[in-house]
Amino acid sequence: MQDIKVGLLGFGTIGTGVVKMLQHNAKVIEQRLGARLTLSAIADLDTTTDRGLVLDGVVLTSDANSVLTNPDIDIIIELIGGYEPARTFVKKALENGKHVVTANKALMAVHGKELLEIAKKNNVNILLDAAVGGGIPVLAAIRENLCANNFSDVCGILNGTCNYILTRMTEDGDDFAAVLKDAQALGYAESDPTFDIEGVDTAHKLSLLISMCFGTWVDFDQIYTEGITQISAMDIQYARKFGYQIKLLAIGKIVAGGIEARVHPTMIPDNLPMADVKGVLNAVSLVGDFVGPVMLNGRGAGMDATASAVMGDVMSLARAVIGGNKNMTPSLGYQIDQMTTLPIRNIADISSHYYIRFMVEDRPKVLAQISTILGEFEISIRSMIQPEWQLGGCVPIVIMTHGACESNVRQSLDKINKLSIIKEKSMFVRIENELA
Amino acid sequence: MQDIKVGLLGFGTIGTGVVKMLQHNAKVIEQRLGARLTLSAIADLDTTTDRGLVLDGVVLTSDANSVLTNPDIDIIIELIGGYEPARTFVKKALENGKHVVTANKALMAVHGKELLEIAKKNNVNILLDAAVGGGIPVLAAIRENLCANNFSDVCGILNGTCNYILTRMTEDGDDFAAVLKDAQALGYAESDPTFDIEGVDTAHKLSLLISMCFGTWVDFDQIYTEGITQISAMDIQYARKFGYQIKLLAIGKIVAGGIEARVHPTMIPDNLPMADVKGVLNAVSLVGDFVGPVMLNGRGAGMDATASAVMGDVMSLARAVIGGNKNMTPSLGYQIDQMTTLPIRNIADISSHYYIRFMVEDRPKVLAQISTILGEFEISIRSMIQPEWQLGGCVPIVIMTHGACESNVRQSLDKINKLSIIKEKSMFVRIENELA
Repeated sequence: MQDIKVGLLGFGTIGTGVVKMLQHNAKVIEQRLGARLTLSAIADLDTTTDRGLVLDGVVLTSDANSVLTNPDIDIIIELIGGYEPARTFVKKALENGKHVVTANKALMAVHGKELLEIAKKNNVNILLDAAVGGGIPVLAAIRENLCANNFSDVCGILNGTCNYILTRMTEDGDDFAAVLKDAQALGYAESDPTFDIEGVDTAHKLSLLISMCFGTWVDFDQIYTEGITQISAMDIQYARKFGYQIKLLAIGKIVAGGIEARVHPTMIPDNLPMADVKGVLNAVSLVGDFVGPVMLNGRGAGMDATASAVMGDVMSLARAVIGGNKNMTPSLGYQIDQMTTLPIRNIADISSHYYIRFMVEDRPKVLAQISTILGEFEISIRSMIQPEWQLGGCVPIVIMTHGACESNVRQSLDKINKLSIIKEKSMFVRIENELA
Repeated sequence: MQDIKVGLLGFGTIGTGVVKMLQHNAKVIEQRLGARLTLSAIADLDTTTDRGLVLDGVVLTSDANSVLTNPDIDIIIELIGGYEPARTFVKKALENGKHVVTANKALMAVHGKELLEIAKKNNVNILLDAAVGGGIPVLAAIRENLCANNFSDVCGILNGTCNYILTRMTEDGDDFAAVLKDAQALGYAESDPTFDIEGVDTAHKLSLLISMCFGTWVDFDQIYTEGITQISAMDIQYARKFGYQIKLLAIGKIVAGGIEARVHPTMIPDNLPMADVKGVLNAVSLVGDFVGPVMLNGRGAGMDATASAVMGDVMSLARAVIGGNKNMTPSLGYQIDQMTTLPIRNIADISSHYYIRFMVEDRPKVLAQISTILGEFEISIRSMIQPEWQLGGCVPIVIMTHGACESNVRQSLDKINKLSIIKEKSMFVRIENELA
């Protein structure tokens, strides 16, 4: 039986999961692959911590180069994360004719084009299924089974930390800061949660989804990215009253002249399946011109689920090695020379429905002043809640708009915020009534 | 640019969808495949009906053999359905060194082993993603991305006709016969709906899912198959009262000494995502030992969604052709010589929770008689509803049991049905409180 040799860079949580899966599921891997997968070497700066695994015959080294230059190794698994030294290592692996499996969304979202071109030149491949949606087989589905479709929409809940926080805020009525602290204690949020709660991690993943769905390179900096730190328990409760949930959504759409690519807290109606995706779960929804809407959900992170995606890619590349690396499915689904660069629409130019909360003095004619200005900017009100109770001398007025242009919404709020009746900066949340 | 030639057998609804997709999406297909897909020939007994398509350069013939022996054709799409002549044609295609794409669940569930062995001998492949879940990329997910997992459970809503009927019965309170008639008028049910409503179509699909998840051949006749014709509006309304929905589920599980493989109406709690799968939609849920639970849903049938799955397979096989048919991923995910034959547990030997409805004379001590017999068979009652109203001289008593052995349930009902207080044969529905 043929033996395909694998090298691992990064022996943290996911790396440990991958080694566990390789060992624990060796039999099913052989039965499916018709070959053996052998872990030859692991590189990590920490070579002493006990990960609870028996590593017979595996070299554990702090010298990544010894793994990258090992001529026996066909496939490198990169689980270091971040830009450097991951980028240098991946380049070196490719240049040495080794396939690469990576879970590194930041690296691939920002340096994907460069790395994929190096891969092509060396007739090897980079697979990155673990970079988006953890164990959910969404990238493979786009690349393989749904690949004869033109996609128009992709949308997802892609960050478990944010979804956990928003779910807890919704179910318990707690404030963001309190739930974040809890999430950190439970290990659902990192000690520095910035990348998660500010939406950056979600934007990295969206960038990759968009490339695969629409065949376009994405300038990562052009993705509008807004995190969940401004969401208050009050806004979530109002959303509930209107029959909506607030989720951090990644949204990609084909629109006239380009694409939309945006990450922000979004109100979605309770009756959409995406509204039921709770806690640390992830979900991705796609619309293809023939398949229609498809939704996939499952565990978007965690040691074991991510290991499953990494190992799926390793199996795929092992098959390629056995077959002599002939005509592999391209990493992003499109032949690399067929990728285009579609412009991303500026967030000011999108159209959406909006939830807006004004904090106003509790006296007559306030609503008239607000609605006059909204009217000037062609924003029409679909529904409104003006509670009777009082909150520290001012009351909220909450409205849901019909479709409006974002630049108009921003200009109208700038003008309204200057009124003397307005006691706090007005808050708005975009609404999506239908999803991919 | 290389040109991969395709032949189509069967120019009905799905065949028309496939041709439409080949034509309409030719550009994205080229951008992804790096080659052109050309439809060379279509065989159908009906060569005259106008399908609304322009077929320049395509031979339309009633002679399937001329397609099967055409040396230019690399891939045959079989959309005839049924056992014969589909089986003979697929064999011939394989023996002539052509790959086969099929949506024929009946053929593959019953003759899959024979056909896959012929394919292997001729170094070609059969892909069948359109056979299960229409456009939902579930078979590809199991075969490719999730393939390093050991699966323990698979479960699905796999028949749009049944799900449409049950959804309408649930939402409108109508009876089975009335809704079936409506469904036929709307084209959601065939004029002879037997295969759908008796669960046979679902069982064919379950057989294929089980082979792929568990690496076992399935003796189709051993799958316990019960359709939805006995489900009454009353049972659905009681299910609602208990917080449950009734769905026709396909259930596959690894159990001690073998597997469970069963298709039957099943009560599931409202809060499971599967309960939200309504109308003609399909969904499949899987549990892998590393990935955990994954659920996929979308359009399980229809011209376009099924064409999407067929074309995904065609693309996959076209890639293999371009690469010289080296080391293709096996059709069922497992190397064919590694498939086993796990025994299927007899339905009498399963354990489940049960909903049971007795129709009894409306007089005292009836419940005592029933519960005494249930107790004899070690069936304990979790909850009970005994309405006050009267229905044609008899009243329903509805119970939900704790876990019980099916043979005990059946024996107890046989005994209870003989009591003079029992006015109709007692009805039972299996309950699954947790799903894959």
